[in-house]
Amino acid sequence: MPRLRLALAQTNPVVGDLRGNAEQVLAAAREAHAAGADILAVGEMAMTGYPIEDLASRPSFLAAAGAAVAALAGRLEQEGLGDLAVIVGHPDGPHEPRLLGSSNAPTAIAQNCASVLHGGEVVARYAKHHLPNYSVFDEYRVFIPGDELLVLRLRGVDVAVIVCEDLWRDGGPVGRVLEADAGVLVVINASPFERDKDEVRLPLVTRRAVETDTVVAYVNIVGGQDDLVFDGDSVVVDGTGAILARAPQFREHLLVVDVDAEAAADCALPPAVSRVEIGTPGRERPPVAADVATLPDDTEQVWNALVLGLRDYVRKNGFRSVVLGLSGGIDSAVCAAIAADALGAENVHGVSMPSRWSSDHSRSDADELAERIGVNYSTEAIADLVAPIEQQLALDGVAAENLQARIRGIILMAASNTHGHLVLTTGNKTELSVGYSTIYGDSVGGFAPIKDVPKMLVWELARWRNANAVARGETPPIPVGSIEKPPSAELRPGQVDQDSLPPYEVLDALLEAYITQKLGKDDVIDLGFDREMVEHITGLVDRAEWKRRQGAIGPKISGMAFGRDRRLPITYRPTE
Amino acid sequence: MPRLRLALAQTNPVVGDLRGNAEQVLAAAREAHAAGADILAVGEMAMTGYPIEDLASRPSFLAAAGAAVAALAGRLEQEGLGDLAVIVGHPDGPHEPRLLGSSNAPTAIAQNCASVLHGGEVVARYAKHHLPNYSVFDEYRVFIPGDELLVLRLRGVDVAVIVCEDLWRDGGPVGRVLEADAGVLVVINASPFERDKDEVRLPLVTRRAVETDTVVAYVNIVGGQDDLVFDGDSVVVDGTGAILARAPQFREHLLVVDVDAEAAADCALPPAVSRVEIGTPGRERPPVAADVATLPDDTEQVWNALVLGLRDYVRKNGFRSVVLGLSGGIDSAVCAAIAADALGAENVHGVSMPSRWSSDHSRSDADELAERIGVNYSTEAIADLVAPIEQQLALDGVAAENLQARIRGIILMAASNTHGHLVLTTGNKTELSVGYSTIYGDSVGGFAPIKDVPKMLVWELARWRNANAVARGETPPIPVGSIEKPPSAELRPGQVDQDSLPPYEVLDALLEAYITQKLGKDDVIDLGFDREMVEHITGLVDRAEWKRRQGAIGPKISGMAFGRDRRLPITYRPTE
Repeated sequence: MPRLRLALAQTNPVVGDLRGNAEQVLAAAREAHAAGADILAVGEMAMTGYPIEDLASRPSFLAAAGAAVAALAGRLEQEGLGDLAVIVGHPDGPHEPRLLGSSNAPTAIAQNCASVLHGGEVVARYAKHHLPNYSVFDEYRVFIPGDELLVLRLRGVDVAVIVCEDLWRDGGPVGRVLEADAGVLVVINASPFERDKDEVRLPLVTRRAVETDTVVAYVNIVGGQDDLVFDGDSVVVDGTGAILARAPQFREHLLVVDVDAEAAADCALPPAVSRVEIGTPGRERPPVAADVATLPDDTEQVWNALVLGLRDYVRKNGFRSVVLGLSGGIDSAVCAAIAADALGAENVHGVSMPSRWSSDHSRSDADELAERIGVNYSTEAIADLVAPIEQQLALDGVAAENLQARIRGIILMAASNTHGHLVLTTGNKTELSVGYSTIYGDSVGGFAPIKDVPKMLVWELARWRNANAVARGETPPIPVGSIEKPPSAELRPGQVDQDSLPPYEVLDALLEAYITQKLGKDDVIDLGFDREMVEHITGLVDRAEWKRRQGAIGPKISGMAFGRDRRLPITYRPTE
Repeated sequence: MPRLRLALAQTNPVVGDLRGNAEQVLAAAREAHAAGADILAVGEMAMTGYPIEDLASRPSFLAAAGAAVAALAGRLEQEGLGDLAVIVGHPDGPHEPRLLGSSNAPTAIAQNCASVLHGGEVVARYAKHHLPNYSVFDEYRVFIPGDELLVLRLRGVDVAVIVCEDLWRDGGPVGRVLEADAGVLVVINASPFERDKDEVRLPLVTRRAVETDTVVAYVNIVGGQDDLVFDGDSVVVDGTGAILARAPQFREHLLVVDVDAEAAADCALPPAVSRVEIGTPGRERPPVAADVATLPDDTEQVWNALVLGLRDYVRKNGFRSVVLGLSGGIDSAVCAAIAADALGAENVHGVSMPSRWSSDHSRSDADELAERIGVNYSTEAIADLVAPIEQQLALDGVAAENLQARIRGIILMAASNTHGHLVLTTGNKTELSVGYSTIYGDSVGGFAPIKDVPKMLVWELARWRNANAVARGETPPIPVGSIEKPPSAELRPGQVDQDSLPPYEVLDALLEAYITQKLGKDDVIDLGFDREMVEHITGLVDRAEWKRRQGAIGPKISGMAFGRDRRLPITYRPTE
């Protein structure tokens, strides 16, 4: 069997930054070439970042992307890397629109492509067949599906190339790989992290490898892009289902591995399959030892996703530092710890903003948190700022409660305007689900680190992070007081969340059933939840939709990403 | 030729309100039956409202919608209306998912259907073939396309039934209507208003009627739903292209018309077409005179769309009144006038919030506006509220400017929390495009009446509304001072918009080219715009994306609806 050396690069593209993204591919190509690789694959849309949304409908953007791919091929050749076959993802177009709609707007004019660069040229191109248009994906909106298969005859081995969703669909292009009898299947991906996704993705890759008796090389991009976090976790599996190599999650990495693949045979090609020959067989090299990363447990993966999601949102948007309110509660404590892990404590600014209702433990827990993490810390008491407004407007009740939260929002935005910090809003998924936040108050902020984290998981993350610090001989960041005390918004004396909400273990389970599992109210009640509670909570959820729509971006860690995946109307009278 | 009496009902459904929407259909059926109609058609998804977004992925919602359709058929029969054939739009399901994606989430499990109710039963059902997934439409995400055609043999005439987009696609179901040789084509629609859409829609209906030599009956829903405004404008056109009947825009209406249609022949049906027989031919009635509405000019249509969009957003979301800041400027003046037209001046609350930088004319223009329109009016000077914060936080520059806007936001939200008013934010499309608003300041509000209205059109609307008042012998609502003075945010002394922006007639044209026409920067420059200006403005537009995402809903009047149709990433480094 001929031996090929594959290199898979987990790059971290910035959407739209054609120059910077091409540099990332070039750097990986230099490294892969130095490692003696025959082929380098980078992720889906690695040239433009993913998702590009309606940028795919701009002809000038597509033209610029195409020019960048051609220029990259030239650069590779100039640098003496032209004998390395480089597979890179990018949008291709403009093509004739797939359809003209009733608004006369050209819609899908691009294809989602993998191009093969070799010898200074783009020698082949594959267009993705299956365009996901569910959950966070909207590809059918902006792409035209491809219908041809591509096989590279690379140094005597047939290497088939497909893109992401093509691997997931039974009877799709993968089925035809069998007919074309390829020895290696390269899949380039932009596959976002989800809790437990590793329990779905690897089995699928393995199943496809075994089904087709083919080496499957799966490469994913890495990095945060708005509310998506791409985790990498690139992997190579052989036809027996054995993992030959696996890259670490959540960081840029070049995975290099030798694979022994079936030699190409001279059979006729099935219809709609094109074949391009690259290089000659028989290149001798000492074998390379491939990385085989192991994944940490679920909680650590989520923590890492949240850290990367925050870091990339901040940096890719040109910020260097963040500011957030520290209330002494668990949510702001976890957000501060994530921010410090992401950006360094020196780039995190915590502000304690006590009111007349703030308890002593709130202040002391906030003080302790700031000291443990080592973030920049200041205090702005809000009483003297609230009073003139409360008096002039004669406010009481909910209006007066919300006023306190809004003054805090003003303080954080003033810090942002003055110092250029990005404001973090610290609401968790449970609270946002039921609308327990003050719009233009604690919801103020450009990024919401734990927007997709239910309250029970917030506590679990806090405990995990503290234990992890202890295991590494470091100071646990989160004060025990913040973890153990009953949660409260402290907008009036003695207020605690459980005055008006069920215990969080019950509430999170109810929300999982109603929102994530999409069960109707009666079905939720059938699970054993109290009818009155279900009526109350689902009513809160339905009424909070408009708040979620106006909320900040935050990293997605579940199948359901808030205010995005749950695409519901705002104006909506529920009847189920 | 047999004569049929058609009734088309423009109902105004509320999304999710199955009971209320069914009552609307029932009321239309009573009226149609009393008018001797043979058939009543209501709009696409009239049973659930449109768009239902991911509600279509909830099995319990689909089950409830299906039960509501069956119950409606029963109600019609019970009330003695069972001999009227009623065509009603609704989602049907749950079906087996169209696909299982990589997140394992069932996605499209519904079809977008027209059901025919007769004799107490659902006697036939058509599922929409062509699922638009561009611009504001996301149907491919949640629906499974149909592939069969339906013909009703109604009192001796073959009546084909299709849904919305099916009419727009060459070679689609309409082509097969020819084969099936139907005498009448009923198209049920949920087609949102756009400027100049009447110049596209009616010619299309006419072309299809003439092409197929068939009477085409086009029925549309009416009403505001989040940022969409459905305009009705239902129409019946015969095979010569003559308009037989046309309903008025923007209001609920029952259009009744007699049509002479080709008698059904006993030819064989083409494949995948089913036929259902209803009633017997030869019903004699005195002829009915049909309404043939004429459309007002473009400016008046836009005004009407904005009024209905606001009214329905307020009422359908359970509000009765609105509050907005009155600055003396043109934007807030136009918003106040729209609100008064929509809700009555007694339900509009204007607040003047002068600062130390507010000019005398600002106050007097705001006073005059309130008096002209007759809205509730109060004044809250902000100087004493701003000062303590400015001093405690030691703010200056942009932070101090924004503070003023944010205090105003707090005042409006306090009024909302205290009195239950919905806050209106008064930014126009031009300003929002370039990010000229203070987030959590003047952007505060649940609804943005002129979010999709460029500045030049704001002025045009103001002039039109004043002229219209004069023509009706009423007081023109907008003070001449608000129309004629140079626009200014008044956040510092002597500030005017044109300090940092090109003249609005240039800016609006530039934005039209860059955003709506999707031209790249070089292409915009080629149109004759100054290069430096193009670099400056497109940079502002690209950086303002995150503000637009966090903004309020506002009615769409162009093909491009802000923060929705322009679906761009937030994290994005532009390179075109």
